Amino acid sequence: MNDLTIELRQDDEKHLYEQIYEHIKQEIRKGKLLTGEKLPSTRSLAEFLAVSRNTVEMAYGQLLSEGYIESRPYKGYFVCEIDDIFALEGERGKNAKVAPWNVRVKKEAEEPGFLLDFSPHAIDMTAFPFSTWKKITKNILVDANSEMFASGSPKGDRKLREIISLYLYSSRGVNCMPEQIIVGAGNDYLLMLLEKILGRHVKIAMENPTYKRAYRIFDSFAYQISPVELDVSGMSVEALKKSGADVAYVMPSHQYPTGIIMPIGRRMELLKWAEEKEERYLIEDDDDSEFRFKGKPVPSLQASDWAGKVIYIGTFSKAIAPAIRISYMVLPIPLLETYEKKCSFYSTTVSRIDQRILGEFIEKGHFERHLNKMRKIYREKHDLLLNELKDMEEIFQVSGEGAGLHILLDDKKGRKEKELLEVAAAAGVKAYGLSEAYIGEAVPGRKENMVILGYAALSKEQIYEGAQMLKKVWK
Amino acid sequence: MNDLTIELRQDDEKHLYEQIYEHIKQEIRKGKLLTGEKLPSTRSLAEFLAVSRNTVEMAYGQLLSEGYIESRPYKGYFVCEIDDIFALEGERGKNAKVAPWNVRVKKEAEEPGFLLDFSPHAIDMTAFPFSTWKKITKNILVDANSEMFASGSPKGDRKLREIISLYLYSSRGVNCMPEQIIVGAGNDYLLMLLEKILGRHVKIAMENPTYKRAYRIFDSFAYQISPVELDVSGMSVEALKKSGADVAYVMPSHQYPTGIIMPIGRRMELLKWAEEKEERYLIEDDDDSEFRFKGKPVPSLQASDWAGKVIYIGTFSKAIAPAIRISYMVLPIPLLETYEKKCSFYSTTVSRIDQRILGEFIEKGHFERHLNKMRKIYREKHDLLLNELKDMEEIFQVSGEGAGLHILLDDKKGRKEKELLEVAAAAGVKAYGLSEAYIGEAVPGRKENMVILGYAALSKEQIYEGAQMLKKVWK
Repeated sequence: MNDLTIELRQDDEKHLYEQIYEHIKQEIRKGKLLTGEKLPSTRSLAEFLAVSRNTVEMAYGQLLSEGYIESRPYKGYFVCEIDDIFALEGERGKNAKVAPWNVRVKKEAEEPGFLLDFSPHAIDMTAFPFSTWKKITKNILVDANSEMFASGSPKGDRKLREIISLYLYSSRGVNCMPEQIIVGAGNDYLLMLLEKILGRHVKIAMENPTYKRAYRIFDSFAYQISPVELDVSGMSVEALKKSGADVAYVMPSHQYPTGIIMPIGRRMELLKWAEEKEERYLIEDDDDSEFRFKGKPVPSLQASDWAGKVIYIGTFSKAIAPAIRISYMVLPIPLLETYEKKCSFYSTTVSRIDQRILGEFIEKGHFERHLNKMRKIYREKHDLLLNELKDMEEIFQVSGEGAGLHILLDDKKGRKEKELLEVAAAAGVKAYGLSEAYIGEAVPGRKENMVILGYAALSKEQIYEGAQMLKKVWK
Repeated sequence: MNDLTIELRQDDEKHLYEQIYEHIKQEIRKGKLLTGEKLPSTRSLAEFLAVSRNTVEMAYGQLLSEGYIESRPYKGYFVCEIDDIFALEGERGKNAKVAPWNVRVKKEAEEPGFLLDFSPHAIDMTAFPFSTWKKITKNILVDANSEMFASGSPKGDRKLREIISLYLYSSRGVNCMPEQIIVGAGNDYLLMLLEKILGRHVKIAMENPTYKRAYRIFDSFAYQISPVELDVSGMSVEALKKSGADVAYVMPSHQYPTGIIMPIGRRMELLKWAEEKEERYLIEDDDDSEFRFKGKPVPSLQASDWAGKVIYIGTFSKAIAPAIRISYMVLPIPLLETYEKKCSFYSTTVSRIDQRILGEFIEKGHFERHLNKMRKIYREKHDLLLNELKDMEEIFQVSGEGAGLHILLDDKKGRKEKELLEVAAAAGVKAYGLSEAYIGEAVPGRKENMVILGYAALSKEQIYEGAQMLKKVWK
């Protein structure tokens, strides 16, 4: 009994039962109470400690449920046999905050500083209609009931899918019913779902150069990736056929990074290729198709697909804000059944509240107004950059202009990309190289002297300044 | 030239250039303008139609970029050769809204109606602090700047991970640095990420019965799943060893559906098993550990893990609201490097705004208050249900009580689960069977007469009423 002399503190922030529990637990862990040893009955310990029997019962109950002691009918409470109890000795005290091993955890990377960053992936957030977004959020929350906080359909709420279906039809010519749309938290997640639908033994053809992010994701699926070189119309269907791939990932409306718009003839050839075999599909990434600065938007490839061969993927992260984690995937009808079977039990990754906010943002016309505004802003930046770079037209051939959020410069003097980027970096300007977008082994004829300049996130003053700095070091 | 007699309507809502573009495109598609045919020059067409040359140039530009026509230097514009142009004929008119194929798209399923549903997975949303949540949202939006709408760290924002790390330490004894935490949109998504980390040739042991949702997800990964039968302490380590599995998925604090709390001895055995081989890991799903109605919460298995063997997964969907798509995974340090290599390029699936709202909800103490309130509400429902079922104690053995959000009833008369559920359903009451939670082939000794009753989402009145109805049909 002496072992259980417990100093109970009434003023302790811990309940009395917790203090008793903690004491006995420590005695067992330290080996002072040995396996098989009998504990006092709840009644006698209560008397001894001058606490209520209920308090002791609660302490014993906790020890029982954590497996430190066991109750033997008509006999009482006994210390359990615990394998490797002394391994517990190392258990961290309340104050220790760092793991004991000497492994250094990689700190999250910080970007090195540049004065100006011509990133082709950043976007302009300054014109985002914060107040509209806030107002919609506020109004939705006022009406929000528990229904809104309940879990929604795995595909996304039907109302939002209806809105997206109409938007895609009118803006991109995409033909689909809301049943074909799956809303998810970002393109990466939707590609992960698609992996479940298409299976894991997929040989996928990708345009080369391509969107490296998608490449990394397919690579993480252990997909066999066939890089397919581009001609002036985009992915060569001849080369695609030779690759033996079943699935092709393409950006027909505005290829990243080349800016190639796939002409209708090539689109028909691609669709014909897909129709030849049941297992063939085309993944259409329609990322920045909203931003075209002359003429009408080019229709999507999906718009010409009558055989159910195009998987269409798009996002609101680029046109609205990166933090809005809402993308959509339009499955062709032949794949819907596979989705139902293999994926429909995955819970949705987007909160219903966010779905409602976005739905209203589109439905009330704010999205279209925002797009129009952004198109104007981006066009002005695009024109300014091209105009400022005119002095260098003897040195650089410009391409990829007229749409998207970046341009390409091809050094006519044959200077290598690496050299161009290095002198820019030395002046504090981050430019990007085409080589970053190449996948697979180098083939003859690959461009080695092309630089990418994205202008979306820079202000006009910064674009002007950046252009002057680049002219100084590149000319 | 006659072919290009275009009736231009100034009052049309379409721009003039669009009307010209549309007309020529249709002529090409209908085969009235043939491959190789020369178009009039922009100047002559402009004169002919009495529009500005710029208008015609825009129309030609659009046709060029979509690949209907091509420009030959010094020669002019010519209609392109388009493979399979007539396939386009089917292209949907503006009014057609339904796909032409006769495939019927499966309509989203609706649940059949029950008067009362004792679902073990539903939760009580009526006590959700909507107004607090709304207020936090409002305040955050007031301060929200473009930073908040930018894309965040793939692991989730550091601030939220710090808050989660502290919360897990104080409430569940989980030892981790914010670097080890990955925030994601739901457990399902985090398991998808984990698949990328652990690889695809994993043999995984699962408690049997288990949480069927996790089973379905592992099954969709094509993992080899070994069901391991339970004894009174949970997963048998002997059986686990025999299974040959590398990874075990366990719910040590409150096993679903049995409610077994794994005692410390078994936990040490499990950890020892994992330590024996480098590739062995334990996935700890700590789903409803917050709801324990007597004593202190049982610490997590991760709290006793010193070898870096436990992958800890939890969610806020259950304790806050299902629509809050925020879960977290704590990776042991040995797996962090693999995460960095294989997964760190996946964008986060949770918006920064939602991360901020949740962070503040926890940090300001609202989460703890909410949990305390819910614990009280659930305890009352739990007690009420047990009390109402007392009349049947000769018929049913109750288990799994005292924690979680459901109880188990074991029919002493040996009536089968199916019969019990059917008579309940006939009375309008949905009860659940233990068999739903079993995986793999039936083994001797499997319980066939157990019913699961979840009480979280029902009001007290409904629980009372439901209990009376069940007594009537089961007694």
